[in-house]
Amino acid sequence: MKRIARLALFAAIALGTATAAQAQLSKEEMIKFRQSGYTFMSWNVGKIKAELEGANFDAARVAAAANVVAAVANSGLGALFAPGTDTGKGWKETRLKPEFFREPDKVRQIGSNFVQQANRMQQVAAGGDKAAIAAQFEELGKACNACHDNYRREE
Amino acid sequence: MKRIARLALFAAIALGTATAAQAQLSKEEMIKFRQSGYTFMSWNVGKIKAELEGANFDAARVAAAANVVAAVANSGLGALFAPGTDTGKGWKETRLKPEFFREPDKVRQIGSNFVQQANRMQQVAAGGDKAAIAAQFEELGKACNACHDNYRREE
Repeated sequence: MKRIARLALFAAIALGTATAAQAQLSKEEMIKFRQSGYTFMSWNVGKIKAELEGANFDAARVAAAANVVAAVANSGLGALFAPGTDTGKGWKETRLKPEFFREPDKVRQIGSNFVQQANRMQQVAAGGDKAAIAAQFEELGKACNACHDNYRREE
Repeated sequence: MKRIARLALFAAIALGTATAAQAQLSKEEMIKFRQSGYTFMSWNVGKIKAELEGANFDAARVAAAANVVAAVANSGLGALFAPGTDTGKGWKETRLKPEFFREPDKVRQIGSNFVQQANRMQQVAAGGDKAAIAAQFEELGKACNACHDNYRREE
């Protein structure tokens, strides 16, 4: 196995891959699907934020939004990060930095932590305790930013 | 309450709304978020299809994909269908037909059925029985197409 393929495999395992039975996606499809997933997550993260900041906290809405974040995090996003997809256009030009493919250990750590924090967010949200939800929401934000700060280009 | 607002409210309730505490979204944001949600769902529906058609059926992958479909279906998509959003551009021009806002009873029925079928898909997928998953996958497809056939413009 060539070195770059091995690195990509590590990254894919780190983020949870789902390639085997799936039809091969084009680079553009991968980028479009991941942009869609992150954009839809951002709507749901925004809803949790709004519930925490608003006057009428609704735990059911937070739980529904946290379910989306956890489901997307566990959907095998790694399959959408094939080598070479640091360039290319989905809905728009990708913002992924090439460093993503050069730092597999760090990517694995950041990816695993994101999944863990999303799962905890889902569990805590199901419990309905506003203070606990606020605390875990901060952790989730840090987990998201760890990837953004390292591997996402500024717009 | 004006008639159009009342109709929109019915549609929003039908699809599960999440407006209250949320910052007001622009028309373009609504369209972009719903395009993102449906596109990300389509990746996951494609994964279930591939598992059913492939040689090495992986129930865990199907369950992860079904979790995404159910989470998106239960995320309050109705909030992204404000009156007037049958025109406008998110990632691209919306394909929503104006009939969506004129047939609130039918929209409510189609929306509720989609949520039910997505929830059943999640339950059946968790059980891991391939034949049952295939049967429910057909029902899910019908539920998706009921909206596409009535309220989505051809490209």
